Amino acid sequence: METNTFPMGESVYQERLPNGLQVVLLPKPGFAQTFVTFSTHYGSIDRVFRTSASKDYTTVPDGIAHFLEHKMFESEAGDVFPEFSRYGASANAFTTFDLTSYLFSCTDNLHENLDLLLNFVQDPYFTDANVEKEKGIIGQEIQMYNDNPDARVFYELLKALYHEHPVRIEIAGTVESISHITKETLYECYDTFYHPGNMVLMAVGGFDPETVMGWIKDNQGKKTFKPIPVIDRKAFSEPPTVYAPEVTVNLAVSQPKCLIAWKDAVNEMSGPELLRRELALGVALDALFGRSSSAYQELIDEGLIDQGFSWEFERAETYGFAVIGGNTPDPRRLTDRVQQVIDEALQNGIGEAEFERCRKKALGRFLTTLDSPGYIARGYISYLFRGAQLLDTSTVLGEITVDEANREFRAYFDPSRRAVSIVRS
Amino acid sequence: METNTFPMGESVYQERLPNGLQVVLLPKPGFAQTFVTFSTHYGSIDRVFRTSASKDYTTVPDGIAHFLEHKMFESEAGDVFPEFSRYGASANAFTTFDLTSYLFSCTDNLHENLDLLLNFVQDPYFTDANVEKEKGIIGQEIQMYNDNPDARVFYELLKALYHEHPVRIEIAGTVESISHITKETLYECYDTFYHPGNMVLMAVGGFDPETVMGWIKDNQGKKTFKPIPVIDRKAFSEPPTVYAPEVTVNLAVSQPKCLIAWKDAVNEMSGPELLRRELALGVALDALFGRSSSAYQELIDEGLIDQGFSWEFERAETYGFAVIGGNTPDPRRLTDRVQQVIDEALQNGIGEAEFERCRKKALGRFLTTLDSPGYIARGYISYLFRGAQLLDTSTVLGEITVDEANREFRAYFDPSRRAVSIVRS
Ligand code: NI
Ligand code: NI
Repeated sequence: METNTFPMGESVYQERLPNGLQVVLLPKPGFAQTFVTFSTHYGSIDRVFRTSASKDYTTVPDGIAHFLEHKMFESEAGDVFPEFSRYGASANAFTTFDLTSYLFSCTDNLHENLDLLLNFVQDPYFTDANVEKEKGIIGQEIQMYNDNPDARVFYELLKALYHEHPVRIEIAGTVESISHITKETLYECYDTFYHPGNMVLMAVGGFDPETVMGWIKDNQGKKTFKPIPVIDRKAFSEPPTVYAPEVTVNLAVSQPKCLIAWKDAVNEMSGPELLRRELALGVALDALFGRSSSAYQELIDEGLIDQGFSWEFERAETYGFAVIGGNTPDPRRLTDRVQQVIDEALQNGIGEAEFERCRKKALGRFLTTLDSPGYIARGYISYLFRGAQLLDTSTVLGEITVDEANREFRAYFDPSRRAVSIVRS
Repeated sequence: METNTFPMGESVYQERLPNGLQVVLLPKPGFAQTFVTFSTHYGSIDRVFRTSASKDYTTVPDGIAHFLEHKMFESEAGDVFPEFSRYGASANAFTTFDLTSYLFSCTDNLHENLDLLLNFVQDPYFTDANVEKEKGIIGQEIQMYNDNPDARVFYELLKALYHEHPVRIEIAGTVESISHITKETLYECYDTFYHPGNMVLMAVGGFDPETVMGWIKDNQGKKTFKPIPVIDRKAFSEPPTVYAPEVTVNLAVSQPKCLIAWKDAVNEMSGPELLRRELALGVALDALFGRSSSAYQELIDEGLIDQGFSWEFERAETYGFAVIGGNTPDPRRLTDRVQQVIDEALQNGIGEAEFERCRKKALGRFLTTLDSPGYIARGYISYLFRGAQLLDTSTVLGEITVDEANREFRAYFDPSRRAVSIVRS
């Protein structure tokens, strides 16, 4: 077991087991809860891949990673959720563009819950009947997302930003695409991406790391696995420009919703570089559009935004985008005003005092999240799969300067990479 | 400084200062953040009152507690928020039916931020001009609530449940009611309710209690206050029946919203009794309508609810209600189905296994919230003003039985105390 201690005092215990499973333990003494995630580096964008066992690429139906996530909760004995609740835990799972994660939190019976989690995720049970039945359930979920204005405005934005990259496809797929899913395709994806060699178990909370590592080794030692597959995901060819500069969808909403976004022209990025770009541009956007910015105050005063107005910068291994927006009575005017603020910053730069204030705020906010086992467990894994270290955040935030952020900002906000998504009645 | 240690290991340090201010410190060793609330037992329902200084009751305009909250952030030197952000803290405030709270959280500069909080709340600055200006800002906030379907369905519900009790009046008041607010009425409310004798300062997080208590005493020792006023709030006369069994409001929504509620027939309640009722009925409602209940699964399968469906039991000193509901395509059918579940439970009782499962879940959830300084700081104060002790939750949850819950349940869910609120297009 390897131990790493970070400047904020957190210690991380890591070990790669013989079957390839990476175990990460982050004890938080004094905490009542423990939060555990069991995650595979496999999400909705992993749709064309091959392993050492096959020469040709396989293309799987859109939405299959999410479909697999749903089906994992069914064992031969029935639904797994009640078993967690018998041990006082609440379990859940989620699928993103680039990972699938199964998780629980508990304040008691950690050993039992840990075994449950490892066992159900490592015991797939797909039948023709249960796969068919799930299509109805997920079909309803897809319909729900389609009807949800906040989900819709975001998905339509990604469709506008990207030509080819599968981040433009809804995570859950479509009713048509999931109709092609069979138990065979599910097993194929499972065998490729759910091998322990592609997975990470992470626990954060009030436990003793030696004891918990022992439990995990006991559990894994009793099982046999095939050799670790080498996964080759087919590369994406995505041009730097956007697919459509503006898209509008009509849905019954009491107020229009409007998101303004810029895609990242750099297609491949990982590790420290990715974290640094996310943090530098994040602080820059907060300085320009955060609650304490003059733009935010003006837009509120003009009645153009409400308190739901926000910004985000997300950077993954093969895609990245900055988004700004929320509810507005006038999407066109909001877009113009946001662009004005960007233009002004492109011309004159972001001010040092503003930047410093937001940099310190980001640092404080990061330290605060370290008090939350659930946040750490989810955030750590997300960065780990992107080759980065969540716990470097405070160090990087301590290093970035307003000059670096301005350089990043100027290179990033190009009009040819902007798209606007609007949902209105 | 008095110290109380609770079964979960939390220690609470308390002291009442000579000026009447109650200080509650709950250190969480190992936490990065500290969360501080400075609260007065004064909310929107405190609209008719007198003090020892006056013989007659004063009636103040609706919404004045919330108006006062807004105005406190303006000092003679200007806006207080940027000062917190200079010290890396994020500050906020909120007004409920029965309290007003000012708060910040920080990971650094605790002493400076604590002084800022105490100083701005203890330094009112109201002028004719700044009061008039605020009417426009709050008028917009009121309009926003009116347009917000989730806020509206809840406020309309309270209007349907209550005949007289001011919980039926929106916390922010109306554009008309706030037009009567003057700097004189604000000072009158401030002098009555913001005396340290009516307030509590609470800090939760990673600090040393002796040091922090010293800082607070230093700060308060330098200021002079009038004698502690004795506040006499006029009693409410509220009949046990509802004002209207059903109310529908039309707003642009993509799906109708429906809340079904039962008001508490007991008008006055406080202390351990209040906490116990809240917990017993809360567990009972979770057993009947929670995620793992058969009713929840059925309603999802029937397409009558979505994942936003929830229940809540709230009990304050002078009012209480149970609410169940969410989005639904068919409010009438949802109401009938919810009533069916209630009727079935009134007849056959809630099952012991279900109840036990939910009791343990509630316990686990409570222990988990103890990992959150913000949750503790807000929850503790809310119960403190109601004469109850948040940290007794685990003890009480350990004591309540299915029989006690069924007795409470049968006495509570009377059809004459039910009201339904619907928002639809
Ligand atoms: Ni799903
Ligand atoms: Ni307000």
